Amino acid sequence: MKILVVGANGQIGKHLVKLIQNSGNHKARAMIRKQEQAAYFEDLGAETTVVDLESSIDEIAKAADGVDAVVFTAGSGPHTGKDKTIMVDLDGAVKTVEATKKAGVKRFVMISSFDTTREAIQAAPESFAPYVAAKHYADEWLKATDLDYTIIHPGGLTNDEGKGVVQAAIEVERGQIPREDVAGVIFQTLNNKTTIGKEFQIVTGNTPIEDAVKSI
Amino acid sequence: MKILVVGANGQIGKHLVKLIQNSGNHKARAMIRKQEQAAYFEDLGAETTVVDLESSIDEIAKAADGVDAVVFTAGSGPHTGKDKTIMVDLDGAVKTVEATKKAGVKRFVMISSFDTTREAIQAAPESFAPYVAAKHYADEWLKATDLDYTIIHPGGLTNDEGKGVVQAAIEVERGQIPREDVAGVIFQTLNNKTTIGKEFQIVTGNTPIEDAVKSI
Repeated sequence: MKILVVGANGQIGKHLVKLIQNSGNHKARAMIRKQEQAAYFEDLGAETTVVDLESSIDEIAKAADGVDAVVFTAGSGPHTGKDKTIMVDLDGAVKTVEATKKAGVKRFVMISSFDTTREAIQAAPESFAPYVAAKHYADEWLKATDLDYTIIHPGGLTNDEGKGVVQAAIEVERGQIPREDVAGVIFQTLNNKTTIGKEFQIVTGNTPIEDAVKSI
Repeated sequence: MKILVVGANGQIGKHLVKLIQNSGNHKARAMIRKQEQAAYFEDLGAETTVVDLESSIDEIAKAADGVDAVVFTAGSGPHTGKDKTIMVDLDGAVKTVEATKKAGVKRFVMISSFDTTREAIQAAPESFAPYVAAKHYADEWLKATDLDYTIIHPGGLTNDEGKGVVQAAIEVERGQIPREDVAGVIFQTLNNKTTIGKEFQIVTGNTPIEDAVKSI
């Protein structure tokens, strides 16, 4: 399977490309914003493609040409300017969804935020609500398509070393999770067709990632 | 007909409530953010309801209880903070749409921006693109419902006195239009069921508003 990783240069993306390349049976294409970000991925033997998420659906569709799955793990993060929140977390995600359809690719894995429900927008602190809203509308857009989607809702992200064990379910108690483990969950999600059409939350837990994803 | 005007305290809203109240056969309910904004509307004999667009769908649905149509003419404007762009222009609009459905009201008139197509987002200057994106997603959300909607796309808004003559069509050349004339177009849209399921652009032109809207 060849997988386009959108937002490859983020911490989750870097871990994910490494997992894919080291798997032996899958290959990654890293979508990056700048040519100077390519070296890390080339060292892993991965393809790279330089496309900004603020470019057109057509440009992104070209990046998705010939892959079997698209993973969206780009993010402005909750602390960038609010203009980037709408242009990257919402519009960038929607354009990637539309580009995936245009490229004729069916499988799509979305890395969302922990809780993107309507209730979560209302309950969020004022500074965080726009980010939750952006992720909410991106998730809603994806769910209205006929793509083979999975939406992953990670808890608070840390840069700790991966623990390899998680808790995964439609609803879990709020907690943290290393970015490396989120990458592990994405990788297992790509391997498990049973996750298609589903969304689930993940935090650090007691179940090996492979088993936790299989149980979804 | 009783009409809930969301964003009544804006210039378009104020003109619209006046038109409705002076029509003799319609009544307006002005949705305002603060009680101290009520006097203008009470002087016109209109009902008022104090609801913030950042409150819940249920709260907004209560404001729509018993009306025959909802007009969304609220806006953070393109020059407010980008957090308000997503929370008012997108999420506030979507919540109003959902509240309208919840209240069992079918007719919905959305005041959008001049061009909210995908192409317009891509072409917009960086500072304006988030606003266009917010309006795009709000319009898309509305179109995906089974409400009896009309989406009005006015040109550049001015505070000039209304001229009473406009050009209205699916696509017109970019131009300006007084807010008072936008209110006139909304009022005639409410009177014309032929506008249901349609969207159109408006700028100042040569055709009396009533005739221009009838020709849509």
